Order: sequence, then structure tokens, then C-alpha cells
Amino acid sequence: MANSSSEVVPATPLLKDDLDIVIPTIRNLDFLEMWRPFFQPYHLIIVQDGDPNKTIKVPEGFDYELYNRNDINRILGPKANCISFKDSACRCFGYMVSKKKYIYTIDDDCFVAKDPSGKEINALKQHIQNLLSPSTPFFFNTLYDPYREGADFVRGYPFSLREGARTAVSHGLWLNIPDYDAPTQLVKPLERNQRYVDAVLTIPKGTLFPMCGMNLGFDRELIGPAMYFGLMGDGQPIGRYDDMWAGWCVKVICDHLGLGVKTGLPYIWHSKASNPFVNLKKEYNGIFWQEEIIPFFQSAVLSKDSTTVQKCYIELSKQVNEKLGKIDPYFNKLADAMVTWIEAWDELNPPKVAAGVTNGPTKAK
Amino acid sequence: MANSSSEVVPATPLLKDDLDIVIPTIRNLDFLEMWRPFFQPYHLIIVQDGDPNKTIKVPEGFDYELYNRNDINRILGPKANCISFKDSACRCFGYMVSKKKYIYTIDDDCFVAKDPSGKEINALKQHIQNLLSPSTPFFFNTLYDPYREGADFVRGYPFSLREGARTAVSHGLWLNIPDYDAPTQLVKPLERNQRYVDAVLTIPKGTLFPMCGMNLGFDRELIGPAMYFGLMGDGQPIGRYDDMWAGWCVKVICDHLGLGVKTGLPYIWHSKASNPFVNLKKEYNGIFWQEEIIPFFQSAVLSKDSTTVQKCYIELSKQVNEKLGKIDPYFNKLADAMVTWIEAWDELNPPKVAAGVTNGPTKAK
Repeated sequence: MANSSSEVVPATPLLKDDLDIVIPTIRNLDFLEMWRPFFQPYHLIIVQDGDPNKTIKVPEGFDYELYNRNDINRILGPKANCISFKDSACRCFGYMVSKKKYIYTIDDDCFVAKDPSGKEINALKQHIQNLLSPSTPFFFNTLYDPYREGADFVRGYPFSLREGARTAVSHGLWLNIPDYDAPTQLVKPLERNQRYVDAVLTIPKGTLFPMCGMNLGFDRELIGPAMYFGLMGDGQPIGRYDDMWAGWCVKVICDHLGLGVKTGLPYIWHSKASNPFVNLKKEYNGIFWQEEIIPFFQSAVLSKDSTTVQKCYIELSKQVNEKLGKIDPYFNKLADAMVTWIEAWDELNPPKVAAGVTNGPTKAK
Repeated sequence: MANSSSEVVPATPLLKDDLDIVIPTIRNLDFLEMWRPFFQPYHLIIVQDGDPNKTIKVPEGFDYELYNRNDINRILGPKANCISFKDSACRCFGYMVSKKKYIYTIDDDCFVAKDPSGKEINALKQHIQNLLSPSTPFFFNTLYDPYREGADFVRGYPFSLREGARTAVSHGLWLNIPDYDAPTQLVKPLERNQRYVDAVLTIPKGTLFPMCGMNLGFDRELIGPAMYFGLMGDGQPIGRYDDMWAGWCVKVICDHLGLGVKTGLPYIWHSKASNPFVNLKKEYNGIFWQEEIIPFFQSAVLSKDSTTVQKCYIELSKQVNEKLGKIDPYFNKLADAMVTWIEAWDELNPPKVAAGVTNGPTKAK
């Protein structure tokens, strides 16, 4: 059959040696069985949340490294306080220790979804396609991603913008349980997302969006240092805003640096709604605070001197300290943690040009 | 069967007395036969382009008024020079003479498309749904239109923005022949749009888009006076930029006034690709000029005093005259025509509050 040849898995999966899959978890990773055909060729970084004495079982045949809280404390020392505890925000530690160019991160309650034809969706492959093709942040294309097969730029799209921008982020979506906040979960307990929208699109420059960390790919070299998931969970007055925080920072920095953020395909199957009462307790401060945080990010301007993600992030941390500190002292603490995060990132990821001289004192003449 | 009752056409079609369908044409309107089940209850405004001595046949049973060039000249007098001749841009005359709140405009080479289940798409009904539900221009919702059945605002969407904005424009798409410019037509003569994307979304504030006039709905009361399709066709150095021009002006004014613009569903079936060689001749000036026009509109700022669409449009015409006049004298002429268009609009659509006193001298004490 003509079709069967196109179904054969290619000999070398795309970006096999250039991408890590980061999974935060508190339980055995049985969910990987369903992902085996798509994930097995790749390296996994598992960030174990909560009790470090518990053993997490990983199905056989997967290539992985696993970090628990003791590992994080040992590797980062005092800087480990920027990594959240008892919250999936700890996943960003995996972004930091990776040595690869690309990251895909997924929650352990996410399974393989099917497209309308009934075919299982290789979410990772679609993220890679999204990341390897340009974005169009400067002008909207009404036929969505112009780089997809069967699509292009429509009449009226300026030719000077058709090269697009480099894509930093690929934000995937969810069938079945939608990513709703606690109030919406409470009001619509039975709502399921059944609409498969066959589109990938660029979120325009200047527009913020709610970035969900459940099914997310990004280019670590382009935007990695901004993918900090903040201080959430144990000892913090807020939870379930880890990915939102990262998304706001990432989008402002991508806009400043001329990078693109895509959303849409691929879908995963989100299996289980979290408890809305527990969620409300985690979220309620965020529900108030975001009314001031979002205007802050919408009007945030970075200086021309901020030419790297690190510089942008440090500049943003100062603005957070000054302007959001008024809402709650939590934001002063968070601004400090943003700086610590960058210090830890640079420690684990020394600039490539200086990699050969890291043993020498950098300030000495 | 439970399904059959939901398939019954409602006794009174939505907005039956509040919406006009505007069709520019040079030929007999046989295409209406296919639209009969959906369009027949509505009033049509047909704007006959080209030779006014030709008789356009309209299938029986449709309620319509028809204007040819002689009618336009008679009704507008010297102001008729703002209405293009030998170009479908003449359709905007239909927007001006309508007395209804809503307009749907469609080209005569557009037919009823089918959704993936094979069901014929009632494009008009979808436009009405788009126009009657709010837009979300201030923050992006990753599950697209949150007001559609089965969807909502996702986690992280500010609650203060969930009322949305009033929707001024509903921009529909096209299956089969995509709306490509002449160069893309020449390069990809066989490309057909076969992707049905089941989404409606708001184009964010601050983002421009290429508005196509082929399948377009709008709220005439909210944005009508900005829906001017410019000077195109006979005697002009440009064609096929009529809807683009309207789209740039409309979007800037909607952003200024806090109104929403949606794009996506519904699809129509676009039957016939226009001649790419003829199109190139019409477009080539626009292809150069848009590289300066779009940055102009992207940075256009309207003053606080511009509180109505008319005032916004007059202010924009002055900026066009000043800033785009440098590209080509055509833009000075276009800026004048923009003013004439507003004068003609206000003449045919006197302000409602003053409607009873239009005979008296408005400046007398």
C-alpha cells in the first residue's frame, strides 16, 4: 500500500540528540508506556517532587536521569532555594541541568490524543515542527501558520515579513480536561474539550497569553533562562501560577528580542481534572494579583542594553521588585529568586566561549 | 429522532430585519441559487459594477435593490467620485445606502462550503453568531473563542477581561481557492486550501491583519463609516487592495475605540482563481507600497478627541495625506476621497438624534 511506507518511523527520530523531555512527578511513570513509540528514542530528565526517599519507577527501556530534592540541594547549594518544593514548578530545574538545545515538558497525567481521523498524535513531532519553522509575530496571517504544508501567506501580507522570526516556544493544547482555573472548574465540572482545532498560530508581538506548562516545547538556547517557574507550593502564598509566570516573562522577552511564540497543535489527552477546592486554595491570591501583574507585563519595556535573555531577565526582576513589590512582599522574594535562578543557570551553563577558561578567576586581569 | 428537531430552520431567521447582504457583481447572480436556503429571508443590496446598460438577472424569490453606476451618480452627485468604478470596491456604496445595523458581503464566485462532516455551512449564521458574541482583543485565549459552546476562558485569563469587547467585524475564510496575491498564485497555481480549522478567534489589539472582502460581516452601526474600500480600478494606479485598505483603517479604529475583530469560521467555497497576470498588473504598486503603508498603520495613533468612527476616519485621512502622500500623489487623492466618503455617509445617514430637525439650519441659534 502506498500509505504504509509513509507510516514507517524514520531511522533517526528528529532532534534525537538535541532534545530532552522534562517530566516533574511524584509517582511511578506508568504513563510513559503509552508514549513509548514516540518518547523512547529521547533522553528524559525526571524531576522528582516531594519526599526524596520515595522511589519513582520508570518503565524499562527509557534513557533517563532523575533528580530528587536532595540532588537539587547538592547541585545548587544555597541557590537551591529558587527551586520550588512540593509543586510541579520544580520542573524548571530540569531545564537548567539539560545540555540540549530543545526541551519538551509534559505532565504525567497527559496521554496520547487522537486526531479526528483516529490516528494517535505524536505530540513531540509536532512541537519539533513548530520549533524548527519560523513564527510570524509582526503581522497576522489569516490562514494560520504559513509554513505548514498546503498553506502560505495570504494576499496583503508584506513580503518583507515573510521570512518570519525564529521560534522560541511551541505551546500545545489539551483534549478532554481543559486547563481551567478553580472557579471555572467549580462552575463547569463536566465540561470537556472535544474541539480539535487543526491550527498552529503565532501569538502576535505585544500580546500576552496564558502559557500552560502541561504540554510545552521550547528552544533552550533562545529562551531557556527565562523559563523560570517561580516560587510556588511549599511555603509560598500561591500555586498553579508557575507556568503563567514563566509565560508572561517569556513573552515580554521574546517580543523584546524579536522571537516567536506559537500555540495550537499538538494536542495531548489530559486525563484527570485536579481537585477544584485544592486548586482554589492555591490560586486565590493569584486571581487577585494577576489583575495587577498582567497590566505590569503589558506595559513592561526592556532597555536596548538588554541584548541577551539573561540581561532581559535581570532587568525584569528589578521591575518586578520595584513595581510588584507593592502588591505583596512575596514579589520582592520572587524578584530575588529570579536573580538567583539566573546565577544558578549561568553556573551550570557557562558561556560557550568562556568554557575553556572557567577554572581561572574571571575578574583577574 | 432527537436530531431532526434541532435541524428545523427556525421560524424567523436571526436578524432578518437587521441585516443586509451586499453583493458587487458584473454578471447574472446564478450563484444565489445555492445560497437560497440561507439568504432568501434577507434583503439584498446589489451593486452593479461596470456598464450600467447591462441587465443583471437575479433569481426569482429574492428581495433586493440594485444600484448601477447611473444610480450611484444620481444619489451621490459630485461625491460619487469616491466610489470606485470597474472594481469590486464599489461594494462599499451598498454599505452606505443600507439602513440596517449589520452587513454581510460576499463575492459572486463564492459558494456554500461543507464542514468535515459533509454538512453545508450556513456562513451567514456563523457570522451573526460571531457578531452577536463579544471579542477578546486585550488578552489571548488559547482555546480560541471562549464564548463558543464547549469552550471558556482558560486558567490565567484575567477575570476583569472576561466580559470582552463588542464585536465590530467577523472575517470569514475560504476553502478551495485561497486568497493569495499574484506572485504566490504564479508560484503555486495548484495550491488549494483543504484545511478546515474549526476556530473563531479575536485578532489582538495592536495587531494588523489582511482583511479579505470576499466573505465578511460587520456591525454597520459600530464601524460602518470606516468600511471604505478606497479608490481602485478604473483610472487608479492600484487594484485588489480595496479590502486591505479598509482592513487597515478598520483595525486601527477598532483598537482605538475598544472594539473587537474576529477571524476564522465561517468558510465559503471559493470557486475560481482570478487571472494571476491580470492580478499582478493591478497589485504591483500595492506590493511596493504596502511595505510603507503597514508600518504607517502599525504606528498610527488617534487622539482622545476622536470618539466616533467618523472623527477617527477624518483624523486618519489627514495622517494619510501627510505621511503617505510622500510615497505617491495617489495617497493625497485617496485622503480626499476618504473625506468625501464620510461626507456622503453622513448625508445618507444623518445622526439619529438630529433626524427630526434636518430641515432647519443647524448653525442657527
